[in-house]
Amino acid sequence: MRHDHLITSKQLSRADIEAILDRAAEIDADRAAVADRHAGSLLGLLFFEPSTRTKMSFETAMKRLGGDVVDMGSVESSSVKKGETLADTVRVIEGYADALVLRHPKQGAAKMASEYVDVPLLNAGDGAGHHPTQTMLDLYTIRENAGLDDLTIGIMGDLKYGRTVHSLAHALTNFDTRQHFISPESLQLPREVIYDLHQAQDAQVREHETLEDILPSLDVLYVTRIQQERFPDKDEYQKVAGEYQIDKRILEAARDDLTIMHPLPRVDEIAPEIDETEHAAYFEQAHNGVPVRMALLDLLLSKNGGGADE
Amino acid sequence: MRHDHLITSKQLSRADIEAILDRAAEIDADRAAVADRHAGSLLGLLFFEPSTRTKMSFETAMKRLGGDVVDMGSVESSSVKKGETLADTVRVIEGYADALVLRHPKQGAAKMASEYVDVPLLNAGDGAGHHPTQTMLDLYTIRENAGLDDLTIGIMGDLKYGRTVHSLAHALTNFDTRQHFISPESLQLPREVIYDLHQAQDAQVREHETLEDILPSLDVLYVTRIQQERFPDKDEYQKVAGEYQIDKRILEAARDDLTIMHPLPRVDEIAPEIDETEHAAYFEQAHNGVPVRMALLDLLLSKNGGGADE
Amino acid sequence: MRHDHLITSKQLSRADIEAILDRAAEIDADRAAVADRHAGSLLGLLFFEPSTRTKMSFETAMKRLGGDVVDMGSVESSSVKKGETLADTVRVIEGYADALVLRHPKQGAAKMASEYVDVPLLNAGDGAGHHPTQTMLDLYTIRENAGLDDLTIGIMGDLKYGRTVHSLAHALTNFDTRQHFISPESLQLPREVIYDLHQAQDAQVREHETLEDILPSLDVLYVTRIQQERFPDKDEYQKVAGEYQIDKRILEAARDDLTIMHPLPRVDEIAPEIDETEHAAYFEQAHNGVPVRMALLDLLLSKNGGGADE
Repeated sequence: MRHDHLITSKQLSRADIEAILDRAAEIDADRAAVADRHAGSLLGLLFFEPSTRTKMSFETAMKRLGGDVVDMGSVESSSVKKGETLADTVRVIEGYADALVLRHPKQGAAKMASEYVDVPLLNAGDGAGHHPTQTMLDLYTIRENAGLDDLTIGIMGDLKYGRTVHSLAHALTNFDTRQHFISPESLQLPREVIYDLHQAQDAQVREHETLEDILPSLDVLYVTRIQQERFPDKDEYQKVAGEYQIDKRILEAARDDLTIMHPLPRVDEIAPEIDETEHAAYFEQAHNGVPVRMALLDLLLSKNGGGADE
Repeated sequence: MRHDHLITSKQLSRADIEAILDRAAEIDADRAAVADRHAGSLLGLLFFEPSTRTKMSFETAMKRLGGDVVDMGSVESSSVKKGETLADTVRVIEGYADALVLRHPKQGAAKMASEYVDVPLLNAGDGAGHHPTQTMLDLYTIRENAGLDDLTIGIMGDLKYGRTVHSLAHALTNFDTRQHFISPESLQLPREVIYDLHQAQDAQVREHETLEDILPSLDVLYVTRIQQERFPDKDEYQKVAGEYQIDKRILEAARDDLTIMHPLPRVDEIAPEIDETEHAAYFEQAHNGVPVRMALLDLLLSKNGGGADE
Repeated sequence: MRHDHLITSKQLSRADIEAILDRAAEIDADRAAVADRHAGSLLGLLFFEPSTRTKMSFETAMKRLGGDVVDMGSVESSSVKKGETLADTVRVIEGYADALVLRHPKQGAAKMASEYVDVPLLNAGDGAGHHPTQTMLDLYTIRENAGLDDLTIGIMGDLKYGRTVHSLAHALTNFDTRQHFISPESLQLPREVIYDLHQAQDAQVREHETLEDILPSLDVLYVTRIQQERFPDKDEYQKVAGEYQIDKRILEAARDDLTIMHPLPRVDEIAPEIDETEHAAYFEQAHNGVPVRMALLDLLLSKNGGGADE
């Protein structure tokens, strides 16, 4: 990577992305080879918002590299309650750690914080902003299951909110992909994201209100959660959500090698009966967070002198 | 052990139990010998209910074996709040860890969860269900202090609720023990537990309303907490609880080598003046959680390829 | 140190303090030399009150020595909620760890708890009582920046509450220092602290209501936060607090080599424009918590047989 911090996947070129995914694949194939690679290094965890899988996955990644973590804990138990600024908090905690992971509810928080610290900082989600390590594990999962070139992908559900979708869509423009966005009209991709995608490549982007027509052509279907709180009443929610749920009957029209992904947690978007099929890649996707974050941490720590032999 | 998961002490034969206790004793006698034994292994902690000593004791055990933990944190900060099922949560987290420890408020949760994962899962308490690692440390403490055969044990306090007592009582039927249950009538052992004990052996089981008659014959007195919320009013609680409290005066009728145990935390059940006597084994009992859980983790991880030389 | 527990900086002689600071400097200069020194040792963290930097700093220190921690977690998730006494809690947890760190809202808690345990216990703050490891890192920072002898120090802000100031002021009486206390009348040092300081040395202690007169003579200015809740209304608070804020204009009267310290978190006491000046030592001060706590842990653990070569 050309930068010392990882703030957005937009900062990564196709070559950068491929280097990260290659390193993740290498690590995944032989974890023992890196089991002590960053022994003695500490990763500072600053989660200003709750998170299970992102936080555990970073912690696991760091420990699988032989390192350890120091965790700020919840905001309720921290100095933030006493009115401390984010800039002060990160400047204190960088004294404890060799790299920092930051999740924060405010868009732009990671970029701002990174300007105050000398150790590498990884953005683990900044409000409606970016979540680049999620994008990397999504890309890794797509590459493992369907390849990243000559790919036809459907992204379905709540496309309006959710940095995960925006970030993934943008990153895919580095590759030869056809992107289909499937959602109710009220949850379409924001126009500025569409504009952004068109800027980035010869537009291979289409929008749909139903899955039906496009399903047979898909290599990958990426499903996201439609949240009840986006709708004025419960009936309206249930009517809409019901139209974007995947079960075995719907999959009859899909290709045999369709890969189904979901950033999890899911509620009703994918029926449990899909879990045992060859289509289901969402648990594998969650697990891929570990080798992908190991690769990212390894690249950043090694560059900053934390690695054993570089 | 014949199984890959530890869900209930009922799944363990006398030989299984003795193998676990022997391994715990071996570890306790020479902790240095296992200090690196599971280096690089990670234990996933999933505590859906608060716990201090069980959680810390598992964490200590794993770290004393050279391993480390990844902790889901409190339910409030997890995806559970977003409506994720337990089955999904454990399937995600098994991707991070080499074994899982689960505490959950619902009876049967550990059994159900274990059916979704490939790594060993240890039940750390499932509602009114089971808590097998507590039982193992209780048995270990009894064996160290009084031996498990030709044993006369009194179990006193709230016998109606509390998996600890039911699980211990059942496990003791594997050995030549006489069990005396001492409680107010309203907090007696449930009839189905009594029935279950009678099924398991030539019944050596008696119930009492007061300690007085049986105290002189006891090798071990296992005291549990009587909780105020079990009673309609505070006066009634205080009257009943007062009759099941242990102090030096009461112990005048006890054997010199009586061992007093308690799963802790205690409130008023055992007077502090007992702490410094030879009878008190409850802090030792809490500390025994470490070698016993080290033994259990070692047995399960070694079986699953995590051990250095097996 | 002459004691197995660290409860107050008052228990430390000038020679003790210098030994700790020397060890911290030695560690700071060559962290790699101690990176495995306490491998296999566990530090028990018992924080009955929230804390970010003290807790993370202890955790970092222990891990930088090759050791690890076991954390009781928040009081809400612990047995304390079930009515367990502090004496019982520490007696259980000492079975898990090789040393304990305790923060508790009640003054005297650390002293009391230390009487129940055999492993070393470090006081990380007991209400309005003591916080000796904070004092040691303050002294370390002063020594590194200005030296501890022939020192003129100003301590400013809320001097009435806050163990940090009282503890530091007392510790400084071991050295040849002139102490100036600057605060509004309502937040002056308690008379008993003044009395105590006078007892400890030939009084080199003065009180001031404004910084102006004394600023030019200071080697070190130690600023503390004036908390809004100490004042009857917001206007009164803002008026008073405004008089004790440091910015570049005020510093025109200061010596070029003035060192500014603050225990953090700060709110408005020190303007951000100071951060990039040579005066600012408060982030360095926070970071010094690591080598100083490493030194303290090393001294206590080595004495108790936890060290590799002593």
